[in-house]
Amino acid sequence: MKTTRTQLLLTAALVSALAFATAVAQANDGLPSWSDGRAKAAIVQFVKVVTTESGKDYVAPAERIAVFDNDGTLWAEQPIYFQFAFALDRVKALAPQHPEWKTKEPFASLLKGDLNGALAGGERALLEIVMASHAGMTTEEFEHIVKDWIATAKHPKTGRPYTEMVYQPMLELLAYLRANGFKTFIVSGGGVEFMRAWVEKVYGIPPEQVVGSMGKQKFELRDGKPVLLKLPAVDFVDDKEGKPIGIQKFIGRRPIAAFGNSDGDLQMLQWTTTRPGPGLGLIVHHTDAEREWAYDRKSHVGQLDKALDEAMAKGWTVVDMKRDWKRIFPFE
Amino acid sequence: MKTTRTQLLLTAALVSALAFATAVAQANDGLPSWSDGRAKAAIVQFVKVVTTESGKDYVAPAERIAVFDNDGTLWAEQPIYFQFAFALDRVKALAPQHPEWKTKEPFASLLKGDLNGALAGGERALLEIVMASHAGMTTEEFEHIVKDWIATAKHPKTGRPYTEMVYQPMLELLAYLRANGFKTFIVSGGGVEFMRAWVEKVYGIPPEQVVGSMGKQKFELRDGKPVLLKLPAVDFVDDKEGKPIGIQKFIGRRPIAAFGNSDGDLQMLQWTTTRPGPGLGLIVHHTDAEREWAYDRKSHVGQLDKALDEAMAKGWTVVDMKRDWKRIFPFE
Repeated sequence: MKTTRTQLLLTAALVSALAFATAVAQANDGLPSWSDGRAKAAIVQFVKVVTTESGKDYVAPAERIAVFDNDGTLWAEQPIYFQFAFALDRVKALAPQHPEWKTKEPFASLLKGDLNGALAGGERALLEIVMASHAGMTTEEFEHIVKDWIATAKHPKTGRPYTEMVYQPMLELLAYLRANGFKTFIVSGGGVEFMRAWVEKVYGIPPEQVVGSMGKQKFELRDGKPVLLKLPAVDFVDDKEGKPIGIQKFIGRRPIAAFGNSDGDLQMLQWTTTRPGPGLGLIVHHTDAEREWAYDRKSHVGQLDKALDEAMAKGWTVVDMKRDWKRIFPFE
Repeated sequence: MKTTRTQLLLTAALVSALAFATAVAQANDGLPSWSDGRAKAAIVQFVKVVTTESGKDYVAPAERIAVFDNDGTLWAEQPIYFQFAFALDRVKALAPQHPEWKTKEPFASLLKGDLNGALAGGERALLEIVMASHAGMTTEEFEHIVKDWIATAKHPKTGRPYTEMVYQPMLELLAYLRANGFKTFIVSGGGVEFMRAWVEKVYGIPPEQVVGSMGKQKFELRDGKPVLLKLPAVDFVDDKEGKPIGIQKFIGRRPIAAFGNSDGDLQMLQWTTTRPGPGLGLIVHHTDAEREWAYDRKSHVGQLDKALDEAMAKGWTVVDMKRDWKRIFPFE
């Protein structure tokens, strides 16, 4: 008995020592895809300040909440939001069950491959596409559908799975923050159930740390077995003013660091950077037309206009993708 | 340099060894306030089964989600829900700013000390009291109000602060589950912002692991500073069918263990116990009129009727407080 416990203790100590050595090694250069510039320096300096126990800006680990937008911040969002690509694929897959779609907009245009025609109906058309593809099944069925799609669908430009269209420097940043005691959350306009189906594997962020837009649900017993049915009605939109509200509702703490890339993230950055105590606000600026895409003030996807002005006025960190990132995608 | 790292490694190893030894000691008897009976045995057996890596019912740590109702499960709920006591105290404190309440129900009756008269208006009267006390301020102002109240208010029967009216066996259970790799959440009909103001200190459950009912909020810039304003409108009711929905929305994983005490927890227990793989459902039955309160099928607070029938039919674990708990409150 005594020997066993001693052995257990020794094993635990060795495992811990190894983990610690690994952490130390990584901390020495935890951001290899980041160029040595102002953006990287701002991140490293911020982390140093909030983790230095003797400093005036020390933040206890429990309070080290970092929130990340997803589309355009953790993974790409061109030529169309990836979740919208999923919705279009679903409409095509479901078309045989909906003969009425042949003559009903926005589906008729969509099925002819005319995306602009389909979206001529504006927000209402978009909502119809989202509802047709995201409601009318149980939450478990939807999870399987997303998992199947994400495992097989390919990005139209690179031919890569969408889960490879993630930003290597941001993967490093997530790991770097977690190694420094941060709890990392996604706070995205994307659908929460769409993201939860794959983000744990790709970003190391568990489902319970994902905040997003969502539809209404209904609890039902089917032959005595409970299911949650996804209804065709919007419940919460986690964008713009919705982001601080989503943070308050789902996390209940004010973040100390926020990472975004568009005007949809403006209020989340305001909410984070004006808290009492230190707060880091960072914007990923898409400036690399060669390795990724270059767009900002006039883009229909991920428009960055007001938030860019405010970033400059308030001194938030702006990442120039072309200059600040040595590598963009993991497959490069 | 080399010496420093060796010293660091050694320190880390020692700290780890100590933590491990403590964990081992606690695991030997992690539930001292529980009598040796069927309820304790069911808990210990379940934890053993899901944590035994070689077993067929092993559950990976990331999936070990345990959800707890609050009122009547983690703390008492008699003679009235404690959050309702807070609301009544707030109405009294705010009365000088609302001269119109002197003649307006339900406030007029309330301020005369006539609770039954005030509640004669049914659900609408209740909602008016909740809104008057829980809306019209920023989220940060509300947090301060709750913290002040919880630090000073006393339970009418015991004269103890409400945060001492928590169940010692459940505090042990929370710690026991966490020591076994579980992530513990509250899923309560109570207000999420009311709970988050104090549950971390009392239960060791951080704000981001609290799911509850909530009102609508509005993001506003006041002199350039963002605030979240609490609006007098219900957003989500985390009770009955709302509990599995709240779990899905906020946690995004199906729990493997659920703890409740009333019909409000029925659907959460159904949702947990019918998952594929092992699922523990437990109901705290208030059977001790001497040390606490005895109530179930006909109680206006924490009614336990349908869920008790289903517990017996489905073989869920029912805790008989009188018999199963050696100690009820920490102050005993």
